[in-house]
Amino acid sequence: MSGSPERTAWFNGDFLPESAVRIPFRDRGFIHGDGVFDTARTFRGRIHKLEEHVARLYRSMAYLKLDCGLAPEQLISISRELVARNEPLRGAEGDWWVTQRVTRGVPAEGADDRAGSDRPTIIVECTPLPLARRAPLFRDGIDVVIPWVRRTPPESLSPRAKTQNYLNLALGQLEASAQAPEAWAVLLDLEGNLTEGIGCNVFLVIDGRLKTPRAQKVLPGITRETVMELAAELGIAVEETDLDPYDALTAEEGFLTSTSLCLCPIRSIDGRPLGGGKLPGTVTERLTRAFSESVQFDFVGQYLSHLAA
Amino acid sequence: MSGSPERTAWFNGDFLPESAVRIPFRDRGFIHGDGVFDTARTFRGRIHKLEEHVARLYRSMAYLKLDCGLAPEQLISISRELVARNEPLRGAEGDWWVTQRVTRGVPAEGADDRAGSDRPTIIVECTPLPLARRAPLFRDGIDVVIPWVRRTPPESLSPRAKTQNYLNLALGQLEASAQAPEAWAVLLDLEGNLTEGIGCNVFLVIDGRLKTPRAQKVLPGITRETVMELAAELGIAVEETDLDPYDALTAEEGFLTSTSLCLCPIRSIDGRPLGGGKLPGTVTERLTRAFSESVQFDFVGQYLSHLAA
Amino acid sequence: MSGSPERTAWFNGDFLPESAVRIPFRDRGFIHGDGVFDTARTFRGRIHKLEEHVARLYRSMAYLKLDCGLAPEQLISISRELVARNEPLRGAEGDWWVTQRVTRGVPAEGADDRAGSDRPTIIVECTPLPLARRAPLFRDGIDVVIPWVRRTPPESLSPRAKTQNYLNLALGQLEASAQAPEAWAVLLDLEGNLTEGIGCNVFLVIDGRLKTPRAQKVLPGITRETVMELAAELGIAVEETDLDPYDALTAEEGFLTSTSLCLCPIRSIDGRPLGGGKLPGTVTERLTRAFSESVQFDFVGQYLSHLAA
Amino acid sequence: MSGSPERTAWFNGDFLPESAVRIPFRDRGFIHGDGVFDTARTFRGRIHKLEEHVARLYRSMAYLKLDCGLAPEQLISISRELVARNEPLRGAEGDWWVTQRVTRGVPAEGADDRAGSDRPTIIVECTPLPLARRAPLFRDGIDVVIPWVRRTPPESLSPRAKTQNYLNLALGQLEASAQAPEAWAVLLDLEGNLTEGIGCNVFLVIDGRLKTPRAQKVLPGITRETVMELAAELGIAVEETDLDPYDALTAEEGFLTSTSLCLCPIRSIDGRPLGGGKLPGTVTERLTRAFSESVQFDFVGQYLSHLAA
Amino acid sequence: MSGSPERTAWFNGDFLPESAVRIPFRDRGFIHGDGVFDTARTFRGRIHKLEEHVARLYRSMAYLKLDCGLAPEQLISISRELVARNEPLRGAEGDWWVTQRVTRGVPAEGADDRAGSDRPTIIVECTPLPLARRAPLFRDGIDVVIPWVRRTPPESLSPRAKTQNYLNLALGQLEASAQAPEAWAVLLDLEGNLTEGIGCNVFLVIDGRLKTPRAQKVLPGITRETVMELAAELGIAVEETDLDPYDALTAEEGFLTSTSLCLCPIRSIDGRPLGGGKLPGTVTERLTRAFSESVQFDFVGQYLSHLAA
Amino acid sequence: MSGSPERTAWFNGDFLPESAVRIPFRDRGFIHGDGVFDTARTFRGRIHKLEEHVARLYRSMAYLKLDCGLAPEQLISISRELVARNEPLRGAEGDWWVTQRVTRGVPAEGADDRAGSDRPTIIVECTPLPLARRAPLFRDGIDVVIPWVRRTPPESLSPRAKTQNYLNLALGQLEASAQAPEAWAVLLDLEGNLTEGIGCNVFLVIDGRLKTPRAQKVLPGITRETVMELAAELGIAVEETDLDPYDALTAEEGFLTSTSLCLCPIRSIDGRPLGGGKLPGTVTERLTRAFSESVQFDFVGQYLSHLAA
Repeated sequence: MSGSPERTAWFNGDFLPESAVRIPFRDRGFIHGDGVFDTARTFRGRIHKLEEHVARLYRSMAYLKLDCGLAPEQLISISRELVARNEPLRGAEGDWWVTQRVTRGVPAEGADDRAGSDRPTIIVECTPLPLARRAPLFRDGIDVVIPWVRRTPPESLSPRAKTQNYLNLALGQLEASAQAPEAWAVLLDLEGNLTEGIGCNVFLVIDGRLKTPRAQKVLPGITRETVMELAAELGIAVEETDLDPYDALTAEEGFLTSTSLCLCPIRSIDGRPLGGGKLPGTVTERLTRAFSESVQFDFVGQYLSHLAA
Repeated sequence: MSGSPERTAWFNGDFLPESAVRIPFRDRGFIHGDGVFDTARTFRGRIHKLEEHVARLYRSMAYLKLDCGLAPEQLISISRELVARNEPLRGAEGDWWVTQRVTRGVPAEGADDRAGSDRPTIIVECTPLPLARRAPLFRDGIDVVIPWVRRTPPESLSPRAKTQNYLNLALGQLEASAQAPEAWAVLLDLEGNLTEGIGCNVFLVIDGRLKTPRAQKVLPGITRETVMELAAELGIAVEETDLDPYDALTAEEGFLTSTSLCLCPIRSIDGRPLGGGKLPGTVTERLTRAFSESVQFDFVGQYLSHLAA
Repeated sequence: MSGSPERTAWFNGDFLPESAVRIPFRDRGFIHGDGVFDTARTFRGRIHKLEEHVARLYRSMAYLKLDCGLAPEQLISISRELVARNEPLRGAEGDWWVTQRVTRGVPAEGADDRAGSDRPTIIVECTPLPLARRAPLFRDGIDVVIPWVRRTPPESLSPRAKTQNYLNLALGQLEASAQAPEAWAVLLDLEGNLTEGIGCNVFLVIDGRLKTPRAQKVLPGITRETVMELAAELGIAVEETDLDPYDALTAEEGFLTSTSLCLCPIRSIDGRPLGGGKLPGTVTERLTRAFSESVQFDFVGQYLSHLAA
Repeated sequence: MSGSPERTAWFNGDFLPESAVRIPFRDRGFIHGDGVFDTARTFRGRIHKLEEHVARLYRSMAYLKLDCGLAPEQLISISRELVARNEPLRGAEGDWWVTQRVTRGVPAEGADDRAGSDRPTIIVECTPLPLARRAPLFRDGIDVVIPWVRRTPPESLSPRAKTQNYLNLALGQLEASAQAPEAWAVLLDLEGNLTEGIGCNVFLVIDGRLKTPRAQKVLPGITRETVMELAAELGIAVEETDLDPYDALTAEEGFLTSTSLCLCPIRSIDGRPLGGGKLPGTVTERLTRAFSESVQFDFVGQYLSHLAA
Repeated sequence: MSGSPERTAWFNGDFLPESAVRIPFRDRGFIHGDGVFDTARTFRGRIHKLEEHVARLYRSMAYLKLDCGLAPEQLISISRELVARNEPLRGAEGDWWVTQRVTRGVPAEGADDRAGSDRPTIIVECTPLPLARRAPLFRDGIDVVIPWVRRTPPESLSPRAKTQNYLNLALGQLEASAQAPEAWAVLLDLEGNLTEGIGCNVFLVIDGRLKTPRAQKVLPGITRETVMELAAELGIAVEETDLDPYDALTAEEGFLTSTSLCLCPIRSIDGRPLGGGKLPGTVTERLTRAFSESVQFDFVGQYLSHLAA
Repeated sequence: MSGSPERTAWFNGDFLPESAVRIPFRDRGFIHGDGVFDTARTFRGRIHKLEEHVARLYRSMAYLKLDCGLAPEQLISISRELVARNEPLRGAEGDWWVTQRVTRGVPAEGADDRAGSDRPTIIVECTPLPLARRAPLFRDGIDVVIPWVRRTPPESLSPRAKTQNYLNLALGQLEASAQAPEAWAVLLDLEGNLTEGIGCNVFLVIDGRLKTPRAQKVLPGITRETVMELAAELGIAVEETDLDPYDALTAEEGFLTSTSLCLCPIRSIDGRPLGGGKLPGTVTERLTRAFSESVQFDFVGQYLSHLAA
């Protein structure tokens, strides 16, 4: 994909150059999106909360009756070795997404298309964080748009499992981007409550209290969890609750969390500046500082260092 | 995948041996199931209603803002040539699924994970129909089970687009198979009405009338359409309407339609034999005969010829 | 409101200059939006389908248990006289909205705020059509945006009654305008089906058939009705049915109808050009011509004549 | 409205006699109910919790993107001065509703009917509390009826904003009054949970615990908030939770709260006496006493003093 | 139950005096309402459409996996014989409800409470129509009230099966009766559309067209079916469609149908007289006459003859 | 029902042999399931928490406007005496269900079928627990299956009232049993959350925390309440919350509670073993022990002693 020395990935048992990691087109992970994944990030090359991410991966597998044939510890140690092997390619200011992927694999010839496979496909891989692409968000804040697309309900497919079926979120993002190309979509659920965007959770500050959607209808973000713990430590009241557009349009501040973003302030929701436009808000700032301390890394500084000159 | 001479597939412009058609693992069609497909079948090697299938593929693409860069006529002619190239491998009693697949391709390095790609991945391929696997269904009828899993609602992702996001249907099938390994799942929608199974539509006969779920919440099957036309020609009243478990559990007969099955009788729903257990029912039999005549091919005979001796 | 000679309106029994028609702030029509209205338009000063509009007004009143104390014929004749009185102010190229308004009036002093009033407020008034403001829509087509706001359900307040409670539609429009200032919002209902925008109905052309949302969850537009009749006369298949975003995003053409617009082509929905961008579409054009003939007036020409030089 | 000396109101910058405060009929607050308001009450002429009411008004405005051009402090001071000016008219036993109203004003001539206005209409006014009208409620208790009408869902228009769109609540009250003219309607939400009536919140006592609907789908009453605080101080367990008709029909006691009522016991729900008919219930009585103490005013006594001799 | 000679009923194989037909209290039909029934009526002692009622009974049984061990023809002939035996007790002006009841019977000792039974309980019985009780309805019309209680959805238990689980309808009736003791409740479904009352279907006349709720969420009344056929014969447009309170509150006329009522005009809905109060409406009257002719019996006359002197 | 000496039951005022307790077939409890009941169990002949069960019975009656004409204390003392009278028939290893039943009784002759009755039917009875039938569940664990049938919503009929309308639960069980004859059905509510099975509540252990569905949509089990109290005493975090199939399919352990089962471990849900198949799980075991201690009875031992040799 580039002329530079190639990254390594782990594929069904082997460390290979990334370009050699190619999926048979009959893999159910390709044909049906029938697979799961999870993604940690590194801070200066150290993987953050890898155990938590891998534990969530195994819950996603359990939900879909996928068995990758490896113990969590094995996936963890493969992930660590992979990061070590790719360290020379990381770059001084760079960091990785570290991802484990498991699909149901290729069905046997002549099998029914409704059937699964006993040979799962497993990939572990490193992707450079899009630090330059996202740096302006840390300077300006994120514009959030709420599209008409509603998050898939748990009775169809639980948003708590991190699967390769992202079209619901992708369609929501397409609709938001059509009007505001740089905006991030945050979808409502079928009852009209806020859920999440592609790979991110949302927090609002209302009457000085920190609020975030209940975990049932969103991917329970590891960073989301961390931020709630930090808030508790800072004495900021924090609540998992139903939040709807009234909350979003009248909130004092807000931010998104994700593995890669850590936390990043929201500038506006549906075109309306939050809290009079001051960025970041007081609570957001305190939590940003606390998060940096907890990971001993100035993640905001890292992003801002990638701003185009 | 087998020791026999290898099938050919078309991949981003080239006819290649199938084993050479491998997807970069960063393809959004793999990572997010962000792709669409459509599948016609052959009768003795002739592709049936290819134009209709390709038209539906383009509607799926339009819905998801995918542009494959080819005209429908091009995909049609590639598909025809592919079938011709693979004809020697078809086998006297065999036939193909002929599938076109389009994904959003591989995002540029450093792009956001919320971003798309301008380089779609396109595959056209032939798969042998699982005739032996399914032959018993034509002898015994299909056991249908209604699981608790509800078909993804149109406000989350329209079931009318044939996408690579099949986990909702796959989970429904997993739940049904857990209790009845050979059963076919037919999912309800959020209002409790029958929709579809993985790649199949459902028809019931009630008071001598043929009924099938409205097209809004199912993939509008090409075979479904054909069967409704044939019924009209035969003077059988036919209705697209809301059908719920009361209909399913009290129906006189029923059958599933799909590209590969054409139409295949239902033996039971949730363990209850339909119409006193006579198989196939009168209406099903008339439509089966009419379908065979319309395609000038005894598709039931073909299936039954694959019954294990 | 302007320096020009003043229009006349009818207010509780009297023809008055508009500036003298002022509502006590305790009127329930003001305080609670507790009132109904209906609006016809003129073509060269002739009121179009006034009887139908007034009949709908009485149904709106019946639904809300409002009694204006006048017979429909009286309101019709007041409306006609009003238009005659204002004719000198119409302008050669202008036309009117002709509106009847009925509110529950001012409650007695000391009454409960939950109580009504026996003295309804009645207004009949003429408003110049915003021809210049809307002229570009007839040149370029309308951009439709689907916001997250859902049309109020009939079990809360029936959209079939034309009331002074427009905040649901207004909020939908605010959300759409935030991203696309000139766009027209079309709201979904709670099931995710298309309904209507502020004062307009929506039609889509799909497979050459004309489709429009069922009348239960929209104001049953008089123009909507006319267009369906014209389509039937032209041999265009027309269907009232559930339409969802899949239909909107894959339609061949579309247009909005309203009393003032008559019918006006849709250019795009959620940023996606309909039908390859050709404007107006074939069916839209035929219906536009048929509508002009039916009212013996080139309404498109009238709009275009107001385009800024 | 009466022969007595006239009350004063504040209208777009001026203190005027009420009869001079009249709204142009093109005001969007009249035509579309496109406005918000809030209402405090006085106790012996002292305005109670005015700041809280005005803060809620600004949240209502924020939700609807209304900007009144004044700071909250200005509205507060106008309100105070207004009450002072009207003090001579209050009457020894009387008290006021003190209301601020803000609408989107009159659109410019030729503007689209979908457009807003930059010139909001602002009114501040005093209304005598209907003490005589409501006095019997404090003697006998309120009869509550649950109609079929469901409270507008937040995805259509948030009940947390206090707007001029009251038809949903008004229709609910009309339906209840049709059978029981003196009853107060309390509406269910779309999920079948209790919400609120016109301008009142509902509390039930179940197993000695005080329960009230969650704040998301009701106007968060200032009195509701106060009562919850008082309960906590009295050691009465209090819970915001989903309450449905089972709770209502089996509760031990209940009461409504509102700015004007403070709190008033419920005698029956759907014709069934609460808690064996004893009025007021123990918890209601304790809270009534605590409320009186907190405002240093015997509001029940004031109501009862207005009972017709 | 009375001093007069006793009616006969058929109970598990025997014709017995009614007082001897008593159910063991462990019968699942008693303990769980786990049974079905159907009811025809006589006209001057002739059973009307008995075959249709029995056919519906077998569909109810099929839905609940109940097998009564008798052929439909047997139940029909038992019913006919029963009516013959009771004929001396019918009375000159009287007529019967003729009812078949089948329950799952008494579980074996020691069985699980979740288990069924192989020994169904079967009863066939005659009940005198409450002609005197209902006579005033034919003079004055029926007052319909819509309560908050919603008809059980098909995904919980299909209203199309006539079962011994009537509490949903009974609760709806209780709520309506609490305010209006003589009113008949007609329940909405979960989407807010009209369904049915206890044992009756509802018809409305709107714009001269006859409309009734779709059959999916109501018991498909035999009389309902007859009335639709008669309307078609009379050239009255008839439609099965979603009807909501807007329709009910603005309809021109309306009537209820049931086996015993045949059809009986509605006087008011939620306290609002239909169609200006004229009773019966034109369409109702035509259908009443047609119904009488079709059964060759003046059922209205029969009812009115029972009016108390 | 058996050759052994007969049990006694109490029926409308008298202690009678069970075979003499027979219900007139016109009893509304039979015809419409219009009745309520509650059931305690004995431990070695001692009735457990009888007061709590009787209190719940009176809430069920209140909900349905049933008045049995007795005070709770009377029903309690009748129940105690009944158990004493039946003690000789209990058997050394046996125990009773002790049940009170109240129906609306037999309507007066000529009454409307929509009418109630003033003469309720009251039964108090003892049933031997099906200890042998259920013993294997305590050895092997319970297989839970989630059917498509959804628990009746509170707006149709509250699951919190224990009524004779069990067809919704029975249909759910029928559907589950069709595939897995020994499985216990646990139904979802309309939102897709777990509720209950026939007479049982469900608990899951997730991340070491004990979770059970909120009480609004289930019968609030007395044993459920006890288990939550015991968990609190043991320092096990316990939560009433929305639980959906994701929770069920990924839980570490689970158990059902009911009056008769006390608590019994779940082996699998939808065919997937919980927590790796170890039975009972740690938390389940601790609670089982605590429950036994609290009732001073080894209920598991009692069940296991009935295992077939």
